[in-house]
Amino acid sequence: MPRTLPITSRTRLRRLPARGVFDRAAIDAILDEGIVCHLGFIHKGQPVVIPTLYARLGDVIYVHGSAASRMLHSVSGGCEICLTVTILDGLVLARSAFHHSANYRSIVVFGRALRVSDRTGKLTALQAFSEHVVSGRWAEVRPPSVRELKATTVLALPLTEASAKVRSGPPKDEEEDYSRDVWAGVIPLRLAAGEPETDPRVPSGVAIPNYARFYRRSRKERESTP
Amino acid sequence: MPRTLPITSRTRLRRLPARGVFDRAAIDAILDEGIVCHLGFIHKGQPVVIPTLYARLGDVIYVHGSAASRMLHSVSGGCEICLTVTILDGLVLARSAFHHSANYRSIVVFGRALRVSDRTGKLTALQAFSEHVVSGRWAEVRPPSVRELKATTVLALPLTEASAKVRSGPPKDEEEDYSRDVWAGVIPLRLAAGEPETDPRVPSGVAIPNYARFYRRSRKERESTP
Repeated sequence: MPRTLPITSRTRLRRLPARGVFDRAAIDAILDEGIVCHLGFIHKGQPVVIPTLYARLGDVIYVHGSAASRMLHSVSGGCEICLTVTILDGLVLARSAFHHSANYRSIVVFGRALRVSDRTGKLTALQAFSEHVVSGRWAEVRPPSVRELKATTVLALPLTEASAKVRSGPPKDEEEDYSRDVWAGVIPLRLAAGEPETDPRVPSGVAIPNYARFYRRSRKERESTP
Repeated sequence: MPRTLPITSRTRLRRLPARGVFDRAAIDAILDEGIVCHLGFIHKGQPVVIPTLYARLGDVIYVHGSAASRMLHSVSGGCEICLTVTILDGLVLARSAFHHSANYRSIVVFGRALRVSDRTGKLTALQAFSEHVVSGRWAEVRPPSVRELKATTVLALPLTEASAKVRSGPPKDEEEDYSRDVWAGVIPLRLAAGEPETDPRVPSGVAIPNYARFYRRSRKERESTP
């Protein structure tokens, strides 16, 4: 795979092209930090956007769900889809209403999703989901049964046409507004984990694993934790 | 407006209909807590999903952006769009890989967006954006100039065809898996605000306002704060 994705008519940014990122390492880092994607497809001629979990493994993004899912049925026929991942990093408070903004990192992937139907491929994808959301979990839980694998539809979207868009840093105000006596800056936001809530039916003596007790998702929290 | 939205062929849930919510108060609460929506539209026959800020005011959802925006140009022609808001509340760790899930609240709105072109309507919408993201901010900053209003496209999507989908609570495992010696439960997630980052050019003596210093977005944080 090229280290930088080609810019296509769909991924080229018309507005604020300086915010565009096509570097695969940067794209992968955002995809690997996000948890939920928004999957867009056309159903009966109309756009539908559904949130769903996903995972990246190499040059592929997997989505999955029930074999009975209308969404997966709609998108597994090889039609064009758009998969978008957004991480909100902060609120940008400017001196003028007009220049208020948000700091964010987002990825838009275009392409056609292919159904993964062989058992090994499905297992690989499901392990990738598990590791994407909670690294270390897969080894501790019961693996999918044959019946469960059959009941799961897995789709693979090649990561070939994608772009990232990033805004960071302080507000950009009109020069004449900088002298105003109003606070301006950024309220940083991150997805923070709280105290794990143990299922009441967990046998006594089973401790909360460290991957749950110290769950860190945001880049900032991971960087500030050894 | 009816207190409960009608269920249409687009908003009826095929899968897990018990997760469906059509009550306007519940829909409004989710829309008012979310910050970013994912807007789906069809561009040159293909689905496109773009993250953008939004605000609800009564029975309307506003989105806005640069008058030069390709997205807004595409959706302002009265074509069908789908606006989705998702709040991720937690990771659901089950005893089996298959039953892992996420706790979330999401809203899907279908409809046609109309362009708001009069000055008063635009100002009302922009104030709604400001109050949606940081309540109290609008009164302190410079209001939009005539030129800025002209450079801003505002679209209004009526909140008439929408549904919420909610999952909460502990994992649901197969009965025979409950005796396993593996931890199970929920890792709660919330969008948390960090210490505000003051713009270096803010005049000395201007303090961080309370709405930035104590910014609370998640339902949990708001409920636990007086």
